[in-house]
Amino acid sequence: MIPSHAEYKKDISYYNIFHEIMRKTMKNEKTSNLRDMILDETFDIEPDEIRKIGYHTTDLIVDYFKNIHTRPILPEKTLEQMRELLNEPLPQIEQTPRVVLDECKKKIIENAVLVGHPRFLGWILASGTAIGAFADGIASALNQNVAISGVGMATATEMLVIDWIKEILGYDSKAGGILVSGGSIANLISLTIARNVKAQYDIATHGIKQDNNMVIYASEEVHMCIPKAVNILGIGTNNIRWIKVNDNYRLDILDLEFKIAEDKKKGKHPFAVVATAGTVNTGAIDPLESIADVCQKHNLWFHVDAAYGGFAALSPKLKPLLNGISRADSIALDPHKWLFIPFEAGCVLVKNPFFMTQTFTTKTDYIHADSTKIPLSDDVDYSEYGIQLSRGFRALKIWMSLKQYGVEKYGRIIEQNTNLARYMAELIEESPDFNIMFPVNLSIVCFRYVPKDINKKYKSRQKKKIEEYLNHLNKAIVQALRADRRAYVSSTILEDKFVLRACIVNHRTTKKDIVDIIGIIRELAITEDDAIRNKFL
Amino acid sequence: MIPSHAEYKKDISYYNIFHEIMRKTMKNEKTSNLRDMILDETFDIEPDEIRKIGYHTTDLIVDYFKNIHTRPILPEKTLEQMRELLNEPLPQIEQTPRVVLDECKKKIIENAVLVGHPRFLGWILASGTAIGAFADGIASALNQNVAISGVGMATATEMLVIDWIKEILGYDSKAGGILVSGGSIANLISLTIARNVKAQYDIATHGIKQDNNMVIYASEEVHMCIPKAVNILGIGTNNIRWIKVNDNYRLDILDLEFKIAEDKKKGKHPFAVVATAGTVNTGAIDPLESIADVCQKHNLWFHVDAAYGGFAALSPKLKPLLNGISRADSIALDPHKWLFIPFEAGCVLVKNPFFMTQTFTTKTDYIHADSTKIPLSDDVDYSEYGIQLSRGFRALKIWMSLKQYGVEKYGRIIEQNTNLARYMAELIEESPDFNIMFPVNLSIVCFRYVPKDINKKYKSRQKKKIEEYLNHLNKAIVQALRADRRAYVSSTILEDKFVLRACIVNHRTTKKDIVDIIGIIRELAITEDDAIRNKFL
Repeated sequence: MIPSHAEYKKDISYYNIFHEIMRKTMKNEKTSNLRDMILDETFDIEPDEIRKIGYHTTDLIVDYFKNIHTRPILPEKTLEQMRELLNEPLPQIEQTPRVVLDECKKKIIENAVLVGHPRFLGWILASGTAIGAFADGIASALNQNVAISGVGMATATEMLVIDWIKEILGYDSKAGGILVSGGSIANLISLTIARNVKAQYDIATHGIKQDNNMVIYASEEVHMCIPKAVNILGIGTNNIRWIKVNDNYRLDILDLEFKIAEDKKKGKHPFAVVATAGTVNTGAIDPLESIADVCQKHNLWFHVDAAYGGFAALSPKLKPLLNGISRADSIALDPHKWLFIPFEAGCVLVKNPFFMTQTFTTKTDYIHADSTKIPLSDDVDYSEYGIQLSRGFRALKIWMSLKQYGVEKYGRIIEQNTNLARYMAELIEESPDFNIMFPVNLSIVCFRYVPKDINKKYKSRQKKKIEEYLNHLNKAIVQALRADRRAYVSSTILEDKFVLRACIVNHRTTKKDIVDIIGIIRELAITEDDAIRNKFL
Repeated sequence: MIPSHAEYKKDISYYNIFHEIMRKTMKNEKTSNLRDMILDETFDIEPDEIRKIGYHTTDLIVDYFKNIHTRPILPEKTLEQMRELLNEPLPQIEQTPRVVLDECKKKIIENAVLVGHPRFLGWILASGTAIGAFADGIASALNQNVAISGVGMATATEMLVIDWIKEILGYDSKAGGILVSGGSIANLISLTIARNVKAQYDIATHGIKQDNNMVIYASEEVHMCIPKAVNILGIGTNNIRWIKVNDNYRLDILDLEFKIAEDKKKGKHPFAVVATAGTVNTGAIDPLESIADVCQKHNLWFHVDAAYGGFAALSPKLKPLLNGISRADSIALDPHKWLFIPFEAGCVLVKNPFFMTQTFTTKTDYIHADSTKIPLSDDVDYSEYGIQLSRGFRALKIWMSLKQYGVEKYGRIIEQNTNLARYMAELIEESPDFNIMFPVNLSIVCFRYVPKDINKKYKSRQKKKIEEYLNHLNKAIVQALRADRRAYVSSTILEDKFVLRACIVNHRTTKKDIVDIIGIIRELAITEDDAIRNKFL
């Protein structure tokens, strides 16, 4: 439908109005007045004033770290209360940085969730290093954009950090890599490359063709960012084959083989397998060597989501658990997990770096694509390695943390986390009122509270009834724990059982903390059990 | 192909080996020894030591800001030299933070690109606020993950900041929004939502169907992250219709109407138009009202990439340029551009927030999806608003910057940037040896050096020859500018002409800097012209 003459005229008249605005706002003043209009105002403040802000900021940070052991883990305020506390109209006028910092302390810092508290074992949220925080301050002051050519220093730091990470994993030293916001983007980048490389046609140009028959394999325990990526990629989550897991929550290699065979029979195009090295639910590491064999046999892309477990390689003792990872075509990692780097720090490695630039290049797309980036030097162009163009200087905090602590200490702390998990499991196994769900993988302990008397006392009842109650009770325990604020574990559902889940990726946690956490949970569990059992059983 | 018995056995034996490793590494030590093995080592250092690091960090940052006017803009070292300077094996043992900081100063800070230097006008790289840098230090110390439920304070801050941004733009107060790494991800999120909402079938589940006939429209001047997103989404860049631009580099609405009509005739499925509010090449703002009309008429998703131009709305004078943006279905923004927030800070707004969660939910995908995130409170779950799960506390630096400076000052500085651009254009227009390429849009000035005598002296030559030389000369000028290091502008190609491109998104730039930049460029241009003209003409 070609626009009518009336519409054409309407548009022309819009142009006129628009240009009128442009003329008024941009050209109205007399040329000679322009110079007088510009008052050379800046956001700058005096160096001594910046120093005061910096020292004051430091004092706030020091207090935060100093009190991290003793403050309640969670703020008292709900989201609604926090919104009310913060609520204010869009600020119109200037105020001193001192006032802003004081407000930051009172409203923000004092209401933080103490992720770094030694008794915080929720999700896979690591406690960050102090130097990592100051490194982020420096990085933001320097405000380097690690995408443009010419930013040699930041680019070189990132290249070095990527080399170190490859070495830690024993991965191909010629592999490509880039730092990203976290595992979700690292996995998305990996699967985009996998899809484009394995498509057998130019998918970047033509899009997903007719039959859309590409199929990807992952265990039922894979991270939820994988189906999200498959959605974004236009493959559709129906084309994920959910591979069963065995008793240890690891991908069942026979089911994988079986499902690949089935798909091939149906004329589908299997293209990739996602293995997980450290599932978030149970810490399970999929059988990497076997999956690599299967991928090799069927010419599939072998991707490993090692966001949580990858840096276990820092411990010589734990490293063999990752055997086979060096055969991966791509690996997703999270330095903001077991490298104890403050958020955000993700990483993706791709064995053949050419596949990264081939997938993400914009050079051939259209005439103007590269006109904003005239290559005047032969810098690495990180914008061709992933999704972002503007990209911050994440490498600095990794560089400084690794340099301060060294990999030996890192290895010891990570190993200590796994030993604490085993210690916790041992204490739970010894307890008559707690059940452990499976032998510890990496540093995750899943367990639930089962009152000592429950099976005996209600043995006449249906098993299902008791299970229902145990789910209710353990959910109530997590809620009580949130209200209590002395300790924190998260939860998950394993085979219809609601269970408590302690993830130990915390360098501050000690043996005593583990004993205390179990004690606190027991104390709350007894109270909850007393309060609600009669309503259910 | 079902695995053979031999393969089955092989896999079983692999399991055995694997479990052996697990047993050895995780279970080998006697239970009773576990407690003794855990030495309660941490990454913590004494509070006074942290304070020293913080003060020292502050001093480094103060020095950096203090000298930002006087240091050369670019480091002398090439990427290769930087790599050599940084090169060191993976650090094995601990060292003091003082040593690491000193090295950071010498190797990193002293080799930074001074993006915030008053004469740095390269790309759309803004100079950040000082308080934004310290805010990032605090955010990283607190290490909040603004995804998990329970992090009420960080979530509330982000919600407030998003509300403020909506108010700045005059956008629907009920719209959804999330902070992201930058424009590329903001645009990817927007187009994922557009595709899924407009697909007329459940694309998340089924993937792109048979005919893959969805078509998207954008001007030839659109940012390169748009074709990249279209590639990732599986739509294919062949399904982007490149709409012509008019003399002002704005999308030609008639060509848009024409191409939509053509596609409809062919049975294609037009689903979205990307308008740009401030192209990176020329600062052009597409005719938003007209595009909104077209989208309404054809039921297309109206997306505005306002990464650069969006915050022009902070100036009451410039705000009318964005008329029509309030009708957008989604908007991509970059607070790390004209809100002067340090990298990274992007933002996406979506008029109907339900479309965000509908597109990115993982709740219904598969049984384990939500098991790691038991909703124990009714917090906003930002992981359902975009791609990331773990997500840093970007809101803090925006909150602190807006609070310190207030929108009035922001409006004045942004307006000043546009006035400086007009002033620069004026000076160039008055010069006999510089040509301006088009009237200033927002704060971008595209120009080139054309030696006074060139057209007269070589009038017998082919015009093409002279144009070729001018391209060579201006490229040489940019290179000379890089070597000279007193000023910085980037470049672009407009209608086969290589031109210099000054992007003024710098709160430190003054009138005098503009005069100086032109003087420096002229000085280098004369030298380059003298040196190379004979080789070409």
